[in-house]
Amino acid sequence: MKFYDCKTAPSPRRVRIFIAEKGLDIETVDIDLRKGEQMSAEYRAINPNCTVPALVLDDGNILQTTAGIWAYLEDLHPEPALLGATALEKGRIADVRWKIEFAGLMAMAEALRNSVPAMKGRALPGPDDFEQIPELAERGKQRVQLFLDRVDTMIGDKPFAAGDNYSVADIDLMIMVDFAGWLKMGLPKDADNAQRWYEAVSSRPSAKL
Amino acid sequence: MKFYDCKTAPSPRRVRIFIAEKGLDIETVDIDLRKGEQMSAEYRAINPNCTVPALVLDDGNILQTTAGIWAYLEDLHPEPALLGATALEKGRIADVRWKIEFAGLMAMAEALRNSVPAMKGRALPGPDDFEQIPELAERGKQRVQLFLDRVDTMIGDKPFAAGDNYSVADIDLMIMVDFAGWLKMGLPKDADNAQRWYEAVSSRPSAKL
Repeated sequence: MKFYDCKTAPSPRRVRIFIAEKGLDIETVDIDLRKGEQMSAEYRAINPNCTVPALVLDDGNILQTTAGIWAYLEDLHPEPALLGATALEKGRIADVRWKIEFAGLMAMAEALRNSVPAMKGRALPGPDDFEQIPELAERGKQRVQLFLDRVDTMIGDKPFAAGDNYSVADIDLMIMVDFAGWLKMGLPKDADNAQRWYEAVSSRPSAKL
Repeated sequence: MKFYDCKTAPSPRRVRIFIAEKGLDIETVDIDLRKGEQMSAEYRAINPNCTVPALVLDDGNILQTTAGIWAYLEDLHPEPALLGATALEKGRIADVRWKIEFAGLMAMAEALRNSVPAMKGRALPGPDDFEQIPELAERGKQRVQLFLDRVDTMIGDKPFAAGDNYSVADIDLMIMVDFAGWLKMGLPKDADNAQRWYEAVSSRPSAKL
C-alpha cells in the first residue's frame, strides 16, 4: 500500500491522523502542492482528479478520496473504531461528520481558495481551473464564523464530537479549527465545551501530524 | 422510527430509494419545503438545521443527514449491502459517492439555488439566509456540464457506478442526473456507457419514488 500525502494541506492530514490513530504503518509519498506536483502526468496516472490524498492498494486498485480511504482502512482494521462500532454510533458519526464537512470545512475552503493570491484561477481543487469569486470568499468567512460559534453547542457535555468515543468527526473538527487559524479565526475564548474538547483532541500524539 | 421526507426535494429522495432498496417499511412524514414547513418551530425541534431528511429513532435519538441515516440503516439491515460488503467495495463506494456529491450534486445545488427566483435569499439550505451569487450559479452550471460529460468514463464497462453491485453511488448519480433535468441538462446522447447505466438504474422499482 502507498499513501500519497501532502504535509502542508488539510485534506491529507485527515488521513494521516486516521492512520496514526489506527496504529498503522503505511509507506507514504509526499506530493508538494505548492510546486503543483499534483498536476504532473505522473500523479495524474494515480489520480486524474489531481487531488491528495490517494491510496494505492497492493492489487493496483486506487482510492482517491479521504472518504474512500477511511472506509477501506476501517473495514480492514476495525479497532479502534473511528467510524463507529454500533449502528447508532455509525449513524451519529456520519451525521456529525457531514455537518462539519459541509458547514465547516467546505465553507473554510471557499473562504480561502476564493481570496488568497496563490489560489488565483484555482478556486476549486481538481483538474479544472475556476476563477476566484470574491463574494463566495466573503460568504465563506461568514459561514466559518457561524460554524465556530456553534461548536460549543455541538460538543455540549460530550467528551467527543459525536459522543463517548474519539472518531473521524473529531479529526474533521480539529482540522477545521486549525484551518480556520489560517484566516485568524478560532473558537470563542469563552466557549468552555469547545475549548475543553479542543484541548483534549489536540493533545493526542496524532494531532502533531 | 419516523422518517421526515419531502416528496419534491432531491436530498430526501436519496433516503427514500435507500429504504425501498432495503425492503424496509418506515413510517414517513412529509415536510412541505415549498410551504417552508422545515422552518417551523415543530420541525426545528426535530432538526435545528431545518433540512430534510431526518430520522427519529424509537429511543428518541435523531439523525439529521442522509449520510447518518444511511450508515445507521446499513448497519441494522446489512442486506442488500448498499455501502459495500468488502473492504474494497466500501472504499470504492465511498470514493465514488464523494466524487458524485462534491462534483455533481453540490455543483447542481449551487447552480439551482443561486439562480431560481424561489430561492432568493435562500442560496444555502439550513437555518441561515444567504443571498444568491449569480457567478456561483454560472460556475455551478459549467461544473454540472463537465460532470455529466464525464459520467461515461466514470461508468466505463462496469454494471454500476462503483462496480458490480448497485450501491448508494448509483442512488446519488441517478438523482444527480434527474436533478440536472431541472436545468434542462442531461447525459450526452452518445454516451453509451452512461446511457446504458441510466436505463438500468432508472428502471428499478425504487426509482419511481
